[in-house]
Formats: sequence, structure tokens, C-alpha cells
Amino acid sequence: MKTVEGGVCAAKGFTASGIHCGIRKSRTKRDLALIFSEKPASCAAVYTTNLVKGAPLEVTKSHISDGIAQAVICNSGNANTCNSDGIEVAEKMCDLLANELMIKASDVVVASTGVIGQKMDITPIKNGIPRLVSELSPYGNENAAEGIMTTDTVKKELAVSFEIDGKSCTIGGMAKGSGMIHPNMATMLVFITTDAAISPKMLKKALSTDIANTFNMVSVDGDTSTNDMVTVLANGMAGNRLIDSDGPDFDAFMQALNTITVSLCRMIAGDGEGASKLLECKVTGAADKQTAKTVAKSVICSSLLKAAMFGADANWGRVLCAIGYSGADVDVNKIDVAFRSNQGTIEVCKNGAGVDFSEEKAKDILLQKEIDILVELNSGKEEATAWGCDLTYDYVKINGDYRT
Amino acid sequence: MKTVEGGVCAAKGFTASGIHCGIRKSRTKRDLALIFSEKPASCAAVYTTNLVKGAPLEVTKSHISDGIAQAVICNSGNANTCNSDGIEVAEKMCDLLANELMIKASDVVVASTGVIGQKMDITPIKNGIPRLVSELSPYGNENAAEGIMTTDTVKKELAVSFEIDGKSCTIGGMAKGSGMIHPNMATMLVFITTDAAISPKMLKKALSTDIANTFNMVSVDGDTSTNDMVTVLANGMAGNRLIDSDGPDFDAFMQALNTITVSLCRMIAGDGEGASKLLECKVTGAADKQTAKTVAKSVICSSLLKAAMFGADANWGRVLCAIGYSGADVDVNKIDVAFRSNQGTIEVCKNGAGVDFSEEKAKDILLQKEIDILVELNSGKEEATAWGCDLTYDYVKINGDYRT
Repeated sequence: MKTVEGGVCAAKGFTASGIHCGIRKSRTKRDLALIFSEKPASCAAVYTTNLVKGAPLEVTKSHISDGIAQAVICNSGNANTCNSDGIEVAEKMCDLLANELMIKASDVVVASTGVIGQKMDITPIKNGIPRLVSELSPYGNENAAEGIMTTDTVKKELAVSFEIDGKSCTIGGMAKGSGMIHPNMATMLVFITTDAAISPKMLKKALSTDIANTFNMVSVDGDTSTNDMVTVLANGMAGNRLIDSDGPDFDAFMQALNTITVSLCRMIAGDGEGASKLLECKVTGAADKQTAKTVAKSVICSSLLKAAMFGADANWGRVLCAIGYSGADVDVNKIDVAFRSNQGTIEVCKNGAGVDFSEEKAKDILLQKEIDILVELNSGKEEATAWGCDLTYDYVKINGDYRT
Repeated sequence: MKTVEGGVCAAKGFTASGIHCGIRKSRTKRDLALIFSEKPASCAAVYTTNLVKGAPLEVTKSHISDGIAQAVICNSGNANTCNSDGIEVAEKMCDLLANELMIKASDVVVASTGVIGQKMDITPIKNGIPRLVSELSPYGNENAAEGIMTTDTVKKELAVSFEIDGKSCTIGGMAKGSGMIHPNMATMLVFITTDAAISPKMLKKALSTDIANTFNMVSVDGDTSTNDMVTVLANGMAGNRLIDSDGPDFDAFMQALNTITVSLCRMIAGDGEGASKLLECKVTGAADKQTAKTVAKSVICSSLLKAAMFGADANWGRVLCAIGYSGADVDVNKIDVAFRSNQGTIEVCKNGAGVDFSEEKAKDILLQKEIDILVELNSGKEEATAWGCDLTYDYVKINGDYRT
């Protein structure tokens, strides 16, 4: 497997574009993105479990019930959620785009991100769609990745090539994250494209299996959004034998998909609202997988630990505290904790009690941009990883006055 | 029922004291507190559900297994948790105190609060106990309330008098809160004293029933501490007929207890770490009690909503979002939301969708120190209240470097 350029345009047959159409006030911020597949593609998606669901999600769900899609449209600046005319507006977005692309409206995936509960005016989107379509290009991936950003500070995209059945395949993705990030069975907005040939059923299986260990293990602030969605489009243009059952081909696809999703998870967590650091909690030695996951996620979600990491304070008691209230059945007297970064590793807790360590070395390690929190439960062989970020002044600043 | 002076010393037969013994570096901060009852008292306590439990909790649990206690000792500055010699140190505190007071060590309740995982030196406590005991006074309640503070900015105490069986009874309490506040079946450190005569069994019942709707509905930061504990001492000196079963006397006691606990909840939430505002979420119209509680607590715990309240931003979409991911089974299309303070009430959401409202009026309301978030589910008659605070720069500041 190797990394390639091109994001969502890297796979054969995909083009993309991103423009400023006027939903967001700032003219320098793109607010409308499009991904288009030359051929209708297998499509799978997972959605937020929040009972309050964005209107675009309902529309997308109905459109891809046949497992097929050909285009994705996504706006930023307004979530089109909790609006009485939300479904109507989302359907209209699909109709307008389908008309311009000369495809079926039911082959359009639609998504929105931004403020909840403000009416979304279709006018700027309607006026923007002809330009959005005319700008479609195999190099449009960066513009598209920009078009879905809200408080994100960096574009999030990548692609890798891999082999299935002797054929070179490519898979690429883009994401938006930042705040209201604590996905549950689905996630923020992530769009993945691949030219691998895979049936809708197996694509669904691949995605559902993967997210349990990737996007569902990310938390920026514990708030599960109303508009989370991950979609994968697979147009089969790589020419591999269709993957329609388990086996080595499916495994190769799963591995490539996982490479994309784990990287996007790290990008989303590291660019969490206000974040100055990416935190990765790796739990090992768990009696079962669920225990490992519960512990990892609880640690990554602790506001107190997040603030300590911001301050580069090796306050490991907060790691133990978060494990203790996680609900996981663990023997606290067996837990070891260490902090790790590119400056080295330092053990701070052994068998549930503190060990003497150099505060100076700990500070050096914790002052880096990527911190691993290593938790060894010494009770079995299962492990899990969760991703998060530190809690900073900027998180408060960004969210103290988001709407204005 | 009427409010009276004296905190934990208000009830007959109780004295208290608080000194600086040297656990905390700053000489101006008291770090050791004592409450003493002239007569052995009925005692009930509830503890954190965190698997990592402070050593003092284990010792207290064993000491009050007979339902009787006569003194409470509590230090701040060190939680005596995750230390290999924790139990030994906590037992020693009780022994030294019992010796000085000439009571049984098994009638001492012990508590500690502060940093987790640092060895606690018994020396300053040993040296301080004679002075602590010599300073016991019916006016020592304020010093005791100060002695248990960590990052709390204000003392938290109150007392009320009430009647049982024609006899005037008094109940008073003190608390420490601030950070790592998200109690679960128990809570931060709260000490309540009363001269009402009530059996240990009924006292336990009163406390367990009460906390489900009071302390367990408070959250500052979602972190359930390792050292949470609420204890009540009832020494019977009011001379009322012993409450040893359900009935009007028990109800009167419950009502007085609830007055104390609700006030302490508001004090703890309003003085949450870095807080500039007290938030109270009142959920009405729920189909069942658990739904009301789940919804209220989810709203009060949302980092995004807490940051919006800090910024006086009427971002009600975050209220709906938090209800949607709470896990409660609600019909989101029936939900009404309003914000209320001493500047009035403003409705912002009706039937799950936004209504036009004056941003100026909303700002006026949200700029106050105490904000009510009113959620009407329109699905039944049950209700619940939860208490929290806003998320501010100061929370990050306080917790970014707590240990130094």
C-alpha cells in the first residue's frame, strides 16, 4: 500500500469541486462541495445515532437505499437541521444538482454542516450549482475538502493505492471535524471514494465493521452531532474482480479502508476545536475488546485530563480516575500508565499507584504536538485505541460565540 | 422551615474547627477540618461509584458499618488515593483524632480531597490534631467549611430549622465541589449534621433517596471523582420521638434534608471550576422520571452548550443536540425550549424547530449569573432538574496546571 496524491479524486473516474456560493458570509471561505463519479457507484453510509437528525441525512438514507450513488453535494455554514422545511430544501439541492449533471436525483448523496436551527435559503445553492458543476476537475479535491470545513483549521484528505486481484486500486477520503465530535455508530462528515469493484452489501459490511474501531473511537468534546455521516462510493473502475463475499480481496479492501479512516481520525482529533495537541490513548492487556474500547474512550473524553495535557502536566491520577468511572470492569490495582511522544516514553503509574519519575522529562514529552497515553491493564490480550485532543482556551473562545 | 446561621454547628451538640496544618503550602489556606458531636450520632454515607476509590472512603465505610459515628476529620491538598499506604494513613488519622477526643477510632469518619497519587505525609496532621481539637467551637463551622476547600472560591454551608413531632429540629451542611464533579450515586464531599432523632436505617434511606435527585444531578465537568462522599450525622439532641419508620415525621425530615442538599447542589454547580454562571436545566412533560433526569443531565453536561452559555449565546440547537444524543426516548418534534433568568424568559424553540426571537432580549437574559434552561417534552407529567455551570477560560487555566 502506498500514499498517493489526489484525495477524493485519486481513484479512477472521480472528479470534484468546491466554491463559495454565499451561505457563509466570508467570501474567502468555500461553502459548497461536489464529488462526482463518472459511473454510478456502490454506495454505503453510516449516520449519527442522535435522535435529532439533520434533514440531509434522511434524504440521503432514502436515496441510497438501493446501494447506488453517483454524486455527493455538501454545504457548510448551515446544518439544515431542526428546520420545518429541511427535507424539502435537501431534496431541492439534489434535484438541482441532478438536473445540472444529468443524473437521477435519487443517485445524489446530500450533506450539510454548520449551525443548527436556522432556516437554510436555497437561493445561493441554486445560483451556485452551475458553477460548481462546471468546475468539476480531477484536481478539484482540495477545493472540495475546503468547501466542507466549518471551524476546521486544516483540510483533511488523503489517498492510498493498493492491490486487489492483481489490479491496482485506489481509495481516498476527505473529512470535516472540529467541534460536536463524539460520533456514535457514525461520525462527522467523511466522504471516501474508491475505484475498487465491491458490491453494495460488502461495502456496507466493510464500512460498518471499520467505524466501530475508528470514527466511533474519536471524541473532541463528547457532543454527538446531529449531522454525522460517513459515505463511501466505490465505482469499480479499477477493474478488479467484484468483491461480493468475504475472502482475501475483501480483507485487502478492509485494510486500505482502515488506512484511510485511521488517518482521517487522527486528522480530525488533532484539529479538534481549539486543539493544540493530538491525544491517542492506546489500551492494551484488556480481558475483552469492549473493555479496551470503553477505557480508551473514557480517558480521551476526560475534560480534566484534556486540560492537563494542554498544560503539559503529567497528572496521571486523572487517567486512573477516568478509567475508574468508565463503567469497564477492570482491576485498578493492575493498571500501568505511561506517556509517550517523539521525546520518549515515561512510566508514571505501576499497579495502580504512582512511581517516582522525572517531572522535567515528563514535561519535555508532554510539550510535543502528539501525545500517546499508554494504558496497560495486565488482564488479557485485547487492545483498542481512541483519539482526542486537549482542552484549550480556544475551545471556549470558538464555542462561546459560534453563531456570530 | 426557616434558614438559620451556623452551618454544621447549627444543630444542637455539634462543634467544629478548621486549621492550616501544613499539607497545603499556602499558610493562608486551612487544610484540616473537624466536626464533633457531643453524643454518638446515627450516621449514613454514600460514596463514589468510581472503581478507583480514595483510601479514606474504605476506612469510613468500615467505621460506620454499625450506623454510628461521633466525629468527622477531613483534609484538603491531598486525596490520599492511589497510594500503596493509603489505608494505613487514613486509619492513623482516625486513631490520632480518637485519642485526642477520647472517643473510639471506629466512630470517626475520615475524608481527603486534593491531588491523586501523591503520598500523604501524616506528620502535619499528627502535629495539627491537638490544635484542631482545642479549637472546637460552636462557631467553628466557617473554619471547617474553609478547611475542606480546594479550588473552591467560596465556602458552601447553610442550615435550616424545622419541626418534627412538635420539637424544633435543625439540620445544617457544608460542601466542597469545584472540579472532577459528576457524581454517580454519591458525590463530592458533603457533611450534614442534624439534631433530629432518626435511626441509622431511616437515615440511610433518607440520604439514598435524596441524592438521586440532588447531588447525582450535578455536573461540572463530567469527571466522577474517586473521593466523592456525602455523610449525615444525626445526634438526636432535638428530643423528637425517634424516626424509625416511614410516616409524617420521616417526610418532614426528608423535606428539610432536601432543602439543604438542593442549596448545596446550587452552590457547588455555581462555584464549579472557572464557572461564571450557574446553569439549571428543568425538564418537564416527560413520560417518566428517568427520561426527565437523563435529558436534564445531558443538557447540563454538553461542553458546547456550556461554552455557549459562557458567551451568552442563545444557541438552542445545542440543547436539542444534547437531548438527541442523551439516550432518552423522546419525540424531538414535540420539544419546546426556553431560556430564563432574572431578566425574563424567552422561548427559542417550539415543536423541535426554531422560532423567531429577539437576539437582544436573549443576550440580556443570558448575561445574568443564574440561567434556567427550560425543556418541555410535551409527553407526560414527570420532571427533573439538573445543575451545572458554564465552560470558561478559567476552567482550562485551573486544570491545565493543577499540581504545581
